[in-house]
Amino acid sequence: MRRIYKAHILYTKEKDRFVVLENGYVAVDADGRVTEVAADLESLGADASKRRNTKTDASQLGADASQLGADASKRRNTKTDASQLGADASKRRNTKTDASELGADASKRRNKPEYDDTEIIDFGDCLLIPAMNDLHVHAAQYRNQGIAMDLELLPWLHNYTFPEEMKYADTEYAKRMYRQFVRDLWRVGTMRTCTFASIHTESTRVLMRLFREAGMGALVGKVGMNRNCPEGLSESVEQMVQGYESLIAEFNEPDALVRPIITPRFIPSCTPEMLRTCGELAVKYHLHVQSHLSENKDEIALVQKLEPESTCYGDAYDRYGLFGQTPTVMAHCVFTENEEMALMKQRGVMVAHCPTSNLNVTTGIAPIRQFLDEGLRVGFGSDISGGHNLSIFQMMVYAIQMSKLHYQRNHARSFLTLSEAFWMATKCGGSFFGKVGSFEPGYEFDALVIDDRDLNHDNYSILERLERFIYLGDDRQIEKRFCRGREIVEPKIG
Amino acid sequence: MRRIYKAHILYTKEKDRFVVLENGYVAVDADGRVTEVAADLESLGADASKRRNTKTDASQLGADASQLGADASKRRNTKTDASQLGADASKRRNTKTDASELGADASKRRNKPEYDDTEIIDFGDCLLIPAMNDLHVHAAQYRNQGIAMDLELLPWLHNYTFPEEMKYADTEYAKRMYRQFVRDLWRVGTMRTCTFASIHTESTRVLMRLFREAGMGALVGKVGMNRNCPEGLSESVEQMVQGYESLIAEFNEPDALVRPIITPRFIPSCTPEMLRTCGELAVKYHLHVQSHLSENKDEIALVQKLEPESTCYGDAYDRYGLFGQTPTVMAHCVFTENEEMALMKQRGVMVAHCPTSNLNVTTGIAPIRQFLDEGLRVGFGSDISGGHNLSIFQMMVYAIQMSKLHYQRNHARSFLTLSEAFWMATKCGGSFFGKVGSFEPGYEFDALVIDDRDLNHDNYSILERLERFIYLGDDRQIEKRFCRGREIVEPKIG
Repeated sequence: MRRIYKAHILYTKEKDRFVVLENGYVAVDADGRVTEVAADLESLGADASKRRNTKTDASQLGADASQLGADASKRRNTKTDASQLGADASKRRNTKTDASELGADASKRRNKPEYDDTEIIDFGDCLLIPAMNDLHVHAAQYRNQGIAMDLELLPWLHNYTFPEEMKYADTEYAKRMYRQFVRDLWRVGTMRTCTFASIHTESTRVLMRLFREAGMGALVGKVGMNRNCPEGLSESVEQMVQGYESLIAEFNEPDALVRPIITPRFIPSCTPEMLRTCGELAVKYHLHVQSHLSENKDEIALVQKLEPESTCYGDAYDRYGLFGQTPTVMAHCVFTENEEMALMKQRGVMVAHCPTSNLNVTTGIAPIRQFLDEGLRVGFGSDISGGHNLSIFQMMVYAIQMSKLHYQRNHARSFLTLSEAFWMATKCGGSFFGKVGSFEPGYEFDALVIDDRDLNHDNYSILERLERFIYLGDDRQIEKRFCRGREIVEPKIG
Repeated sequence: MRRIYKAHILYTKEKDRFVVLENGYVAVDADGRVTEVAADLESLGADASKRRNTKTDASQLGADASQLGADASKRRNTKTDASQLGADASKRRNTKTDASELGADASKRRNKPEYDDTEIIDFGDCLLIPAMNDLHVHAAQYRNQGIAMDLELLPWLHNYTFPEEMKYADTEYAKRMYRQFVRDLWRVGTMRTCTFASIHTESTRVLMRLFREAGMGALVGKVGMNRNCPEGLSESVEQMVQGYESLIAEFNEPDALVRPIITPRFIPSCTPEMLRTCGELAVKYHLHVQSHLSENKDEIALVQKLEPESTCYGDAYDRYGLFGQTPTVMAHCVFTENEEMALMKQRGVMVAHCPTSNLNVTTGIAPIRQFLDEGLRVGFGSDISGGHNLSIFQMMVYAIQMSKLHYQRNHARSFLTLSEAFWMATKCGGSFFGKVGSFEPGYEFDALVIDDRDLNHDNYSILERLERFIYLGDDRQIEKRFCRGREIVEPKIG
């Protein structure tokens, strides 16, 4: 069964601008992949007469006609009055897809076969955007989200973070907290998550099963650590290997939505033997790798002391086969400079930018504009519980704001724009999970339906509506969520 | 009728620590002022047998027993397990009011008369905190909240801000937007607002009437501007005086919740004659004053050029009687330094710190720690639409984060703590409106009841619950709102 979704569609093919299709269509095949996106039904090989199959949004959205009441008439007029935008209107118009771009796509489809088995689903006046991707978050710190924010790094780690992670020796505790975590990721529209769990194999399995039951994509890391850490958070290299292999046995189908990811906590927490073994496991089982990089100057100095032959922190990972030998993401990179940056580019190592965490933990401002200029791939991490906010939409806002602070000090590099932040949150961040984060043909259909009527109290353009939702909105406006073509319902927490 | 409210009570008498009363009581007289706050009913002169008057929270909160279901049993156990907090527990215990402090208060009340006419209202497991105060926000930019954030100051002003403010020549448009604005302030728990309207007298009157109807406190500024501004946003000094006097005639009872405030936009927008007249009006009618100060280096240079005899930007206002001759608040003060700081202290001029605006408009980081160290009074402004977020809770979070960035660069001054930010949002910010922002005896009872059960998925301490609500919460957890002792219901927008 092919499905065609109609809505106001926004996504980013490139970082510099949005594709905006007012009342556009996206077609998704039975495997959950986008086949086409178009301004009209005809170019999708679905003639308009088939629209009798249309499910109207009113019943789907749980909003019966009486509820919409007087509002419904107002909402019909969604086009922005260009004169209202004044001189700027011409500039903003350029952010919409121009006809030639769609034309090129349309011509390719001219001789498409007719589809008999097509359902057309109309989301009315809602926005349809790619779902969010979170590239760095500590699931086993979820209880501590938003507390102890007045503490500095060391007392925070020793009094809050490590004691909390130790509790995950108890799989019942893990189940209770991880259910909240997965449900809340669902709430904020994050359909793919790359996360640290804890050292505990069975609790990690609990989390992976919860993601799988929910139908949400995840790379889940059993954490490797065996030095400079408290007694209860250390295990031997052999235990680590056994744990990973047991998870791999259950979860490592190549196309699975939920897979293990090799996760040395960071170099100071892992002996050379553990690091080497992590690198070997990644290659042997074709697993992704995640860790922390250059978050803090003291940390960098410590790594240099522990790995005196390394030329930079990134090089220390590289020597253990943990820096792009398989797809790799590194969180923070606040102090990543020339040589490390070049190595990341060469190896295709991604950056997980965690702006709220960098503020809360008094880290600093990562040079994101420079990373983008150098061609590095950058996505977002909520980094709970260093970060306090699980929403990747809020990471966009913070990233733009941090980048403006950079700009305020040095006008040589412009600040991040909304389309760049959106691209990082969707297409670029999603690339760590495969063809995820765009509505271009071939991409997995990970999507959010945004019903922003409560934010939309005047005639805003489609793009202004998206901007307002990103800056002001929250999970209340997320009406539906899709991952790999499937609608994802709210995961149960009880 | 005296009312006694029972809940977990948190407020700040001083900036350095919270007063926390687990299952405490606050008594409010018929005029809406706090008479006492205590750990037990007996010391309020209300003996426990009178608790049969208690309204239970279940019916009040609209949560019937069946809705609470399994959860209710869990919530009964609200005490934090000290062992969970580990080494830190002892430190955190100190944040609770120690018995001696309450003891001192209790002794004063020992010979209190019995009150016959007392109603006791039990908010169960909810938190009870002072309501929020917003010291700087542009009501007439409300439509533009969260759009055009990629623009720099000048195109933003000329293409979005000025055209929007011009629309307020139409009182019907004003009514539609201002209703949203007042309703949304209500939503986020802001019970006192010091706001810029526009130059338009009749639209300003509309806004003041909406605040009055809602029962919420406000200082509302008809904006004075007559140079360096577009045609439609300029009026003569005579028109300004007439407009102010017409508003004063309707609104200037000394004890009114809603009053006009003298509001020259800023020095570059006002001729010397307009500035002088503003100063005279403030003194003549005992009105507060608000404006902008030292937000931007170009602005400061322009003021120096326009007012060559002034020794600093603040001194320029001072020469026109607009710098503390009556209670004065100045927004931003990002580049306020030694001389200006000293003059502000001398004159008692308050700072409205607008952290999100300063980030969005690429302004910089205001030296808040230094202001506090110098003894200046500092509150928060959401500064819509330079700021994008109306919630003063979020201003606390941003202020702490910005202050951490400062700290990260210069460890000489510590970063703001949660209690300091809370004190700025409540007792210090509230001081611009009178005795507002605390639960100490004599203070007007402006309060929020926080039902945080959906954030509260483990055993957190009362203070951790407040911290989580501030960092993660939103209007959904604000169960009730009080202004000057009266419960404020949701203002109608239709």
